[in-house]
Amino acid sequence: MNKINLYEKLQKIDAFWSPGAIGIVNDHLVKLAKLQGEFVWHQHEHEDEFFMVLEGAFDMHFRDAIVHLEEGDCIVVPKGVEHKPVAQEAVSILLFEPISTLNTGDAGGPLTKQEIPFI
Amino acid sequence: MNKINLYEKLQKIDAFWSPGAIGIVNDHLVKLAKLQGEFVWHQHEHEDEFFMVLEGAFDMHFRDAIVHLEEGDCIVVPKGVEHKPVAQEAVSILLFEPISTLNTGDAGGPLTKQEIPFI
Repeated sequence: MNKINLYEKLQKIDAFWSPGAIGIVNDHLVKLAKLQGEFVWHQHEHEDEFFMVLEGAFDMHFRDAIVHLEEGDCIVVPKGVEHKPVAQEAVSILLFEPISTLNTGDAGGPLTKQEIPFI
Repeated sequence: MNKINLYEKLQKIDAFWSPGAIGIVNDHLVKLAKLQGEFVWHQHEHEDEFFMVLEGAFDMHFRDAIVHLEEGDCIVVPKGVEHKPVAQEAVSILLFEPISTLNTGDAGGPLTKQEIPFI
């Protein structure tokens, strides 16, 4: 049973939009990621996702709203809801989501990460 | 889709060992809690639990080790592993665990919280 330090783990992430896993909790993964720029619109048909800002800030775009998230802010994106993260500057986040969740959801494309490495 | 600020939510917790829920993620809950003192030895037969320290520090006791956790540290306690949180001073933590998880696991007793309120 080892402890996991979020800030040490973040140093191991050297690319944007490339999540790394830090823990398995039942059928869910705890992931860290760094974001900068604009992601693709997508949704996860069967999976809720939890986002927490660790450092920096970003905007979660929905079709009818934009939610600005800063350090200490969290949001649950329910299954079936289209969303698009947009980070004006680099932001570090933590995610809880099912092991099965693909980062690009139903959108696919070049940003899709089929494998999430443990960091 | 509202954002959830961890530090605003923590202000709503006014008792130790009384978790409050801040989000549902599929069949899991994201909870916040404040701990001080010594909890009971217990295990969760079917459920892994994720702990993250938000403010302060505590020790997670296992039968064969003690893991000291400070701000930014996390730990996954796997199903079936006996553990006991001990906080020398007040600590604020975030938990991610199944909706079904009871705080005292198999131990029961007066510290058991049957209902986790949303805060």
